[in-house]
Amino acid sequence: MARKIQLTLLGCGGVGRQLLRHIVSTRKLHEDQGLRVAVMAVVDSKSIVLGEKNEELDDTALLQISLAKEKNNQMPAGLNARAVRKEYFDATLAAAIRTITEETGRPLVVADCTASEKIGQALAEIADLNCCIVLANKKPLTSSFNVYDRIAALNRRYRCESTVKQEVGAALPVIATLNRLLNSGDSIRKIVGALSGTLGFVMSRLEYGESFSDIVRQAKELGYTEPDPRDDLGGMDVARKALIMARLMGWRINLEDVEVECLYPPSLAPKLMSTMQFLKGLPELDLPMRNRVKEAAARGCVLRYVATIENFHCKVGIVEQPQQSALGQLHGSDNLVEIFTRCYSTSPLVIKGAGAGNDTTAAGVLADVLDLQDYFG
Amino acid sequence: MARKIQLTLLGCGGVGRQLLRHIVSTRKLHEDQGLRVAVMAVVDSKSIVLGEKNEELDDTALLQISLAKEKNNQMPAGLNARAVRKEYFDATLAAAIRTITEETGRPLVVADCTASEKIGQALAEIADLNCCIVLANKKPLTSSFNVYDRIAALNRRYRCESTVKQEVGAALPVIATLNRLLNSGDSIRKIVGALSGTLGFVMSRLEYGESFSDIVRQAKELGYTEPDPRDDLGGMDVARKALIMARLMGWRINLEDVEVECLYPPSLAPKLMSTMQFLKGLPELDLPMRNRVKEAAARGCVLRYVATIENFHCKVGIVEQPQQSALGQLHGSDNLVEIFTRCYSTSPLVIKGAGAGNDTTAAGVLADVLDLQDYFG
Repeated sequence: MARKIQLTLLGCGGVGRQLLRHIVSTRKLHEDQGLRVAVMAVVDSKSIVLGEKNEELDDTALLQISLAKEKNNQMPAGLNARAVRKEYFDATLAAAIRTITEETGRPLVVADCTASEKIGQALAEIADLNCCIVLANKKPLTSSFNVYDRIAALNRRYRCESTVKQEVGAALPVIATLNRLLNSGDSIRKIVGALSGTLGFVMSRLEYGESFSDIVRQAKELGYTEPDPRDDLGGMDVARKALIMARLMGWRINLEDVEVECLYPPSLAPKLMSTMQFLKGLPELDLPMRNRVKEAAARGCVLRYVATIENFHCKVGIVEQPQQSALGQLHGSDNLVEIFTRCYSTSPLVIKGAGAGNDTTAAGVLADVLDLQDYFG
Repeated sequence: MARKIQLTLLGCGGVGRQLLRHIVSTRKLHEDQGLRVAVMAVVDSKSIVLGEKNEELDDTALLQISLAKEKNNQMPAGLNARAVRKEYFDATLAAAIRTITEETGRPLVVADCTASEKIGQALAEIADLNCCIVLANKKPLTSSFNVYDRIAALNRRYRCESTVKQEVGAALPVIATLNRLLNSGDSIRKIVGALSGTLGFVMSRLEYGESFSDIVRQAKELGYTEPDPRDDLGGMDVARKALIMARLMGWRINLEDVEVECLYPPSLAPKLMSTMQFLKGLPELDLPMRNRVKEAAARGCVLRYVATIENFHCKVGIVEQPQQSALGQLHGSDNLVEIFTRCYSTSPLVIKGAGAGNDTTAAGVLADVLDLQDYFG
């Protein structure tokens, strides 16, 4: 008799779609371990797709959903499933989850693979239902403490490994490592991390003498940036990752408390111009950036965009790093986290990883889901 | 009402003693989390110390045991506890554990902090009692499959993070990371690791032109080696760590299948001479080693003592590494593991850490124990 993990997937973008495929492709592996990941519902912003008669969605349905969402961002028609069309990333979501738990008489893992801010309230209500929650979405953990505390109260019944590493290296066990250290009584003194593959690419290219504007354009063409590169260059994504780690350490701080260096001036802000106009205006940043690189090089250093978490202060921005240091040696879109503790005081514990994209992030979400298996008899 | 993890500690050497202190010093932290680690028994090779009337040993008793074992390697007299004197690292151990589980009516976590080979059989019987097992001792996982399979059948109810990192950096999450990767369906292609702090110290010192014999003598004086340095230079400790990772990946191989490079010739073996004589004979290895270092340097490389796990083959020995590579940059007693997978194919997932000794290893054991808390209602 297999141990069944009932899962509801929220969000069916790149990560969610890939998660459905991973679930299907690891089916045999998990069966051999006496495990079954049963997807009870897939939810996007417009609809919820449920199995018939509270059964799980079969593998054909999961692949159909994944394909249809990829093709035209629509849930497929004609599924052997109930599809309810409605605005779903709000309070009605919690009601739907409650119905599933009541009708099946079993707890659920709810995996948030959206990028939604407003889903936080629904997740807080879902947490109160004593479901397990797995987050790839950083926003519920980085907005108000009203939402954060209710999710965090789940303690070991929520996981969020993929929030810190959403773009790059989702299987990197940063959160799990921090939890291990905290639980074993080791005190964390400082965390320094290069947490953005996009900004890692940009900063390490600067060393080769290329201009800032050229590198950003290249990164956009290669699909390394968001459609609007300012979403990466603004640093808020890194700030959210830093905040998640700081809150994990028990700090009661908010996103506004994180000191963030934005890599473009207010005169190029999204409210003033389009992405195209921004890219045209970008060369004005080349000279100042080139000077910063030169000044750092004269001191044997390179520039890195880094989060520093220390003494109840979170800071995110460009710092000079010695060329020979671990961060200085970092190249391309590799991510790296250094953790200084009582036990790791002189030489930090280092976790480094490369690899980008939804495949790795979805694998990280699945690992988090499986890590909850002990709650499912 | 606190969640109580009942623990029995096997072995009260450096790691076990430190574990008892960690348990006492993290008492308050865990109480705040609604957790209590209740030490029901402490076992060394000659005796078992139990609380009175199946109660846990109180903090005074735990500290007394830790101190007395440190002072004269004896369990303390006059404890408010039952002490039974007997040979304990054999089958009678399983019987004693069975009695504790029956009398308290609750499951146990049994933490093996011994270095005993023959304790394996007892652990296999304890596994059959459906207790949880945490291992810092590598031997039960690297001897016969008869023992291994019965422990491994516990699946998530056994943990062994500290076996791979016993000397250095026990909190490094190598085993946990491998498990995450395997569970999420990522396939592991290769593992390369510098897994011995002692050999890391020796190999990185060779670069500075010091002689092999001088470095080994220094390492012994600094307490970095075992009392007989041949226990480190023989490579078997690294081979056991490699074997644990290989078996975790499902390989049915034994310690004899690991190809091991021993850093001293048969003419200097323990059965032929004492440690003192060995240290006197050691300079005969200086010239050949110096030549190896020079040849590597001519190719822009350095020597590292590394475990390589690939294509169903485990190899442990000296390899040349480019000076600029992550392994080439490794210094002192730092450990480093590179994991190549489908997702991490070109640039590996890297975990690196420093910090030595029983403090860190014991912290790793405690983290493993706490990670089992979901089995204790």
